[in-house]
Amino acid sequence: MAETDQAPPPSDQLAAMNLTDTVEKHAFSDRVLIRSVVGRPDGGAGLAGQRVRAGGWVKTGREQGKGTFAFLELNDGSCPANLQVIVDAGLAVLSKLVATGTCVVVDGILKVPPEGTRQKIELRVEKVVSVGEVDPAKYPIPKTKLTLEFLRDHLHLRARTNTIAAIARIRNALAFATHSFFQEHNFLYVHTPILTTSDCEGAGEMFQVTTLISESEKLEKELIKSPPPSEVDIEAARQVVSERGEAVKQLKAAKASKSEITASVAELNKAKENLSKLEERSKLKPGIPKKDGKIDYTQDFFARQAFLTVSGQLQVETYACAVSNVYTFGPTFRAEHSHTSRHLAEFWMVEPEIAFADLQDDMNCAEAYVKYMCNWLLDKCLDDMQFMAKSYDKGCIDRLRMVASIPFVRISYTEAVELLEEAVKGGKKFENEVKWGIDLASEHERYLTEVKFQKPVIVYNYPKGIKAFYMRLNDDLKTVAAMDVLVPKVGELIGGSQREERYEVIRERILEVGLPLEPYEWYLDLRRYGTVKHCGFGLGFERMILFATGIENIRDVIPFPRYPGRADL
Amino acid sequence: MAETDQAPPPSDQLAAMNLTDTVEKHAFSDRVLIRSVVGRPDGGAGLAGQRVRAGGWVKTGREQGKGTFAFLELNDGSCPANLQVIVDAGLAVLSKLVATGTCVVVDGILKVPPEGTRQKIELRVEKVVSVGEVDPAKYPIPKTKLTLEFLRDHLHLRARTNTIAAIARIRNALAFATHSFFQEHNFLYVHTPILTTSDCEGAGEMFQVTTLISESEKLEKELIKSPPPSEVDIEAARQVVSERGEAVKQLKAAKASKSEITASVAELNKAKENLSKLEERSKLKPGIPKKDGKIDYTQDFFARQAFLTVSGQLQVETYACAVSNVYTFGPTFRAEHSHTSRHLAEFWMVEPEIAFADLQDDMNCAEAYVKYMCNWLLDKCLDDMQFMAKSYDKGCIDRLRMVASIPFVRISYTEAVELLEEAVKGGKKFENEVKWGIDLASEHERYLTEVKFQKPVIVYNYPKGIKAFYMRLNDDLKTVAAMDVLVPKVGELIGGSQREERYEVIRERILEVGLPLEPYEWYLDLRRYGTVKHCGFGLGFERMILFATGIENIRDVIPFPRYPGRADL
Repeated sequence: MAETDQAPPPSDQLAAMNLTDTVEKHAFSDRVLIRSVVGRPDGGAGLAGQRVRAGGWVKTGREQGKGTFAFLELNDGSCPANLQVIVDAGLAVLSKLVATGTCVVVDGILKVPPEGTRQKIELRVEKVVSVGEVDPAKYPIPKTKLTLEFLRDHLHLRARTNTIAAIARIRNALAFATHSFFQEHNFLYVHTPILTTSDCEGAGEMFQVTTLISESEKLEKELIKSPPPSEVDIEAARQVVSERGEAVKQLKAAKASKSEITASVAELNKAKENLSKLEERSKLKPGIPKKDGKIDYTQDFFARQAFLTVSGQLQVETYACAVSNVYTFGPTFRAEHSHTSRHLAEFWMVEPEIAFADLQDDMNCAEAYVKYMCNWLLDKCLDDMQFMAKSYDKGCIDRLRMVASIPFVRISYTEAVELLEEAVKGGKKFENEVKWGIDLASEHERYLTEVKFQKPVIVYNYPKGIKAFYMRLNDDLKTVAAMDVLVPKVGELIGGSQREERYEVIRERILEVGLPLEPYEWYLDLRRYGTVKHCGFGLGFERMILFATGIENIRDVIPFPRYPGRADL
Repeated sequence: MAETDQAPPPSDQLAAMNLTDTVEKHAFSDRVLIRSVVGRPDGGAGLAGQRVRAGGWVKTGREQGKGTFAFLELNDGSCPANLQVIVDAGLAVLSKLVATGTCVVVDGILKVPPEGTRQKIELRVEKVVSVGEVDPAKYPIPKTKLTLEFLRDHLHLRARTNTIAAIARIRNALAFATHSFFQEHNFLYVHTPILTTSDCEGAGEMFQVTTLISESEKLEKELIKSPPPSEVDIEAARQVVSERGEAVKQLKAAKASKSEITASVAELNKAKENLSKLEERSKLKPGIPKKDGKIDYTQDFFARQAFLTVSGQLQVETYACAVSNVYTFGPTFRAEHSHTSRHLAEFWMVEPEIAFADLQDDMNCAEAYVKYMCNWLLDKCLDDMQFMAKSYDKGCIDRLRMVASIPFVRISYTEAVELLEEAVKGGKKFENEVKWGIDLASEHERYLTEVKFQKPVIVYNYPKGIKAFYMRLNDDLKTVAAMDVLVPKVGELIGGSQREERYEVIRERILEVGLPLEPYEWYLDLRRYGTVKHCGFGLGFERMILFATGIENIRDVIPFPRYPGRADL
């Protein structure tokens, strides 16, 4: 394009902007995407004059000018900001529009509001297309300020609040950032199973999955409807068989015709079949099937005991040991009766696994991934992050910026313990004793990342006694190549390790920790045949959201929280 | 950059190419990404002269030149093609490298092989860095041609075969295409729950999730270790309480000192506490807790009966009715004893939900999404698709091209039945009778898409009697605004509908189909308060992979298939 020294006159610039700045619509709908209006750098002012259709839910509404018109703050979930909508009384019964939660679709023209108002654009309605009314006296969440705890009792409506909607957008952004990061780095997304007959490291209480109870209840109902045959019924059937048998014998002895004999044999077979059916049914017993006093799992759906997964790691390793870099991102489960603000019975984990890579590579990947997510949020969710900063955690944006830009501290477990011991000498009080060999408690982790370094810290090379059997034994024979990523606000965000790839060593470790070999034979096969150096880690997805948003309770950052006593919807 | 008329001499061109064409590496590793070598348009020739490290698994290997060197076909999972590697005998014991499945890491220099060979580039090894050996006599999958059925018995190793690795890459591509499509169209990814206390439409057998069995087994063990108190024990404890009570009474009557009385009362309280503990323990009974002859689910983990989800639709609607366009992509479950090649107990579903949209929008979205996935595969997985075309389904690439480019046929259910009736008149035989009101059988669907139209067909407006209560009732009061997308090869790929947004109508429909209202009150709330026109659909993710690849059995397109009697790993 030829460059000129002359800038076009301002009015032309504006005209050009109006022409090129077409309003973005919701996909597969004729509605404007409210974000594409109010989320513009100019607040939407450049769109003045355009006719659009808008739809959303009323955040707040009020009648004005003695009922001659109404202001509605309309939100469609595309961004935290609302579109201000003005409806004249001639177009609708205003009292039916203004209640919080009302759904409206309107056609109108975008206009620049009078000087002095906060908005840069507003929608002057020309037609009210549809209304989904709300009776404010009955609406369970009419007020705008409700506690997060209260909202947990109204899971089906809480996404209509500013906070839960903002968390939903942040959660969505982090999920797509996760896929984008691993795809850009040539990792394959592998769907590891939810139903499993393996137990990852024997740790964590597992939920059992069964059809035995429903099957036995079905059977009980069935047996009430048509009771099993009595001993008398069976004896009678047995009698028929013996009579029919006798009849066949007699016909044969009498050298009866072939057709007569065939017919008689058919009768006998029918009687036999009936008897065996009755005998089969007489064995049916109500209740869960048992064998030798124990539940007979051969009759369960998978012909053995099955559980909900606690981690996809072991399974995803089978793919890493075949197609190199892989990751899994899915739900995992713990049946622990834990009522804390940091535990859920169902939560999402991201678990990459890298072949031909060691603990250093693992730490590099973890750090790059966390930084990528922070940058993604700063880049794509700044408006939502500003809302979180204003409403929940002043420092959350600075924290993202810091983590995105500063190299993570890396210290060995032994160094970490030394630093904690120094702190104790300096007067710092911990509830849990500090000495080499302990599992670092949350208070220790948060001291390191929040007080001592005030940035993310990776602690590596942990005592083997406190870590899982599959972590690679270091040459000192005392520690394993494990690493945890600690971040301010939540403490441990990531746990990972280089995996033990040496067959003899891992076999020994399984026995050492007291696990049976048999269930791990398939896992050992990965070391028996074409073994490869590899590593991986797990990131608790909800913890990442807590870290990003500053929200305190994990139940508020997952759409449908499950915990002891609660699994609503 | 200044342009010149003179082209640089050829040798300079080559030098420039070598400099700019740096070899891409695996992320977080120093290995070359084999795809970035052999997957280049020039087959890798332009990289000649570069020193690289390569790691992967040997597909086939053979010693040559009387054992003076070996050829290895090395694959790292990044693409279907292998890198040819040449190792001299002086560098390693060649017999330990050549077995299929061996893992090797080598350093070497890329060279153009002699004229007449298939490869455009090969790696001349300078150093063997590491070897993960394989004993070919024991390796469970040593041969390159194994049936898919055989491989199902070796889930942990089957990703090392060309077929399962290609399917893994195609599955990964379709998963990321799914996220990319919905993110580009401003849909939010919502994680609907796996554990649920709701039953979507009362259809489909559900898996039950419980901790009652494990808890009762724990209790049984505990009771064997320390048996519950006998009636005698309790009587004795009761006796102590009464004695201690008497003692207090006497001290009070004797006006004993305050400290004496306090001490005596403390003794009494201790005795009472002991008694109540014993009484509590005496109530413990082995077995699953019951109340009024039924299992007492108030003692289960969630204080009620819980199941694995059969669909995230109802739950994701709560988000659509708050933040507009959303989708869920996760595992779903059916406890059906189905042994067909089209059913799994655990499978993945994609379920978008669109607010302010009707059945037309729903069809538009479904068609755009399927086309997007087809284009994505043609664009990013052509080498894998060529492998599938060569090995399994000649027509699979043409099918993708056709679906990506041709508008889908759209016909009403009534028209579809008329066409089927015409076919019957014309001599076509169906196993299932054709008449208005039937649920279309797979044979009918495949006739329409494979024979009649030979392209994708969307059938819409089904009789209400064969569809779920939440589908929007049409004005004819006989049909509902449902739609199914049928494609060649698999038949039904997508099922969707506009949802009934009218409170009175949906309430009536729930009662009409014989369901109780109470469990659906939360769902009804979405219509009571700020109701919105909305629609959505579900795509069976494995069906899409079957459609794309031409693979016949669904158990081969999911990494860890679960079906009756089998849940390996």
